[in-house]
Amino acid sequence: MADRDVRVRLDIAYDGTDFSGWATQPGRRTVQAELEQALATVLRVPAARLTVAGRTDAGVHATGQVAHLDLAAELWTEAGPKLVRRLAGVLPADVRVRAATAVPAEFDARFAGLWRRYEYRISDDPSGASPLHRRFVLDHRRALDVPAMAAAAKLLLGLRDFAAFCKWRDTGTTIRTLEVFDVTRLPDGEIRAEVQADAFCHSMVRSLIGGLLAVGEGRKDVDWPASLLTRTSRSDEVAVAPAHGLTLVAVGYPPDDELAARTKRTRAIRGAHEVEE
Amino acid sequence: MADRDVRVRLDIAYDGTDFSGWATQPGRRTVQAELEQALATVLRVPAARLTVAGRTDAGVHATGQVAHLDLAAELWTEAGPKLVRRLAGVLPADVRVRAATAVPAEFDARFAGLWRRYEYRISDDPSGASPLHRRFVLDHRRALDVPAMAAAAKLLLGLRDFAAFCKWRDTGTTIRTLEVFDVTRLPDGEIRAEVQADAFCHSMVRSLIGGLLAVGEGRKDVDWPASLLTRTSRSDEVAVAPAHGLTLVAVGYPPDDELAARTKRTRAIRGAHEVEE
Repeated sequence: MADRDVRVRLDIAYDGTDFSGWATQPGRRTVQAELEQALATVLRVPAARLTVAGRTDAGVHATGQVAHLDLAAELWTEAGPKLVRRLAGVLPADVRVRAATAVPAEFDARFAGLWRRYEYRISDDPSGASPLHRRFVLDHRRALDVPAMAAAAKLLLGLRDFAAFCKWRDTGTTIRTLEVFDVTRLPDGEIRAEVQADAFCHSMVRSLIGGLLAVGEGRKDVDWPASLLTRTSRSDEVAVAPAHGLTLVAVGYPPDDELAARTKRTRAIRGAHEVEE
Repeated sequence: MADRDVRVRLDIAYDGTDFSGWATQPGRRTVQAELEQALATVLRVPAARLTVAGRTDAGVHATGQVAHLDLAAELWTEAGPKLVRRLAGVLPADVRVRAATAVPAEFDARFAGLWRRYEYRISDDPSGASPLHRRFVLDHRRALDVPAMAAAAKLLLGLRDFAAFCKWRDTGTTIRTLEVFDVTRLPDGEIRAEVQADAFCHSMVRSLIGGLLAVGEGRKDVDWPASLLTRTSRSDEVAVAPAHGLTLVAVGYPPDDELAARTKRTRAIRGAHEVEE
């Protein structure tokens, strides 16, 4: 970024149903392209370029996505206070910018992230998923043993090699720290899995959920998903759960004075590897 | 119903977005027509005819709709236990039958109802309604004074003539008992209005919400909606809030031994008048 630029953090929410994922692809409707186009329109600049915390797949939703961009200081001073309201008038209803905030130049939405948190929602109601929730809840219909799934999830916690649950993409590491993996049945009967890690390799959350579904149906034992952690490559036995049950709900960042160190460390560990789901 | 028939109660949920309301209309996609067609298919009968608790308008949703139909006893014995699961496989994802239960012959989904409860959801977030909730939440964007709305709602409670809030339809009474009218801001920032009455005249909930929005924006005083209860006909000053924020969440019925008396009483009061929103 240039000396006179301001780094701006955007907090973003979207319904992934009608998007081909986050990342711009020619001829496809993507969240990134919609946002960059809306920003260029509202800011009256030729182009805006976003860096994102989690490059979500087609069909995956977000309530707590984070991205950053750099703006000329004069532009931010003029447009900043009205940016969120103006974007609301330009963006389609399935993507929203919740907040736009000036942050230190060391803030990097992707590499400064300490952790990502996802939720996966499942309905095992034999009558089907709630019509009002069906766009973001898996319609499973077969009864699931939630305590068994919760116990299997606990066995996966910690610093592990998740190669069995990662789609191979490049030479990045598949070692991750799984910090939270809670499975609970909500008062409305739906099942919520909360998953938090420093980062996720490609399709990791959906593969973890695929493993738990096998346990919840009684097809596999509680200790089966954790037994796969000895593998060094993707396991064909693990189904990847459908994208539409998955929502990125939050990304955590360190205090401002630790941003630079965190970014440097993450780049060293993961290099060009995709930090994504 | 014939002597050998069984009366069956259906508990129903739907996303009203893509329906032209509950009631069958030629050439339109309606909840009633989808359900009656699915029932005929699953039960292998030429036709099925439903009587509903609340004939919702186009765009209005339901999580707690109730309807009844009469089935030959042999058919119910054979098909009843698998009916919900079979309907789940035949119905489109935006309408679900949550339960199918044999009830006393005196049960009448429409006339035996003691009360109907609706929820209306509003987002006043300047960045717009949640992408995941936007199909059932009003995207208002202008800040609303929720305590003022809640105070205005309380002044409307009780047995009143709601003519100012009713679209004229026929000669039925506009006198209703408003039992619950609570307005609260939820932890996620959205505003929820809960409205319960013995019954509602046409567009009554949406007109009540329209009145509260004028108060919430500061355009009208807290006592203004209640001041309209002196009118004997629809007030042009009251805007009808959009349909998509409204959801029928529950219908209450008396104990079995009071069903017949309740049905008789309701028919006497309201005659052929639509019990609907």
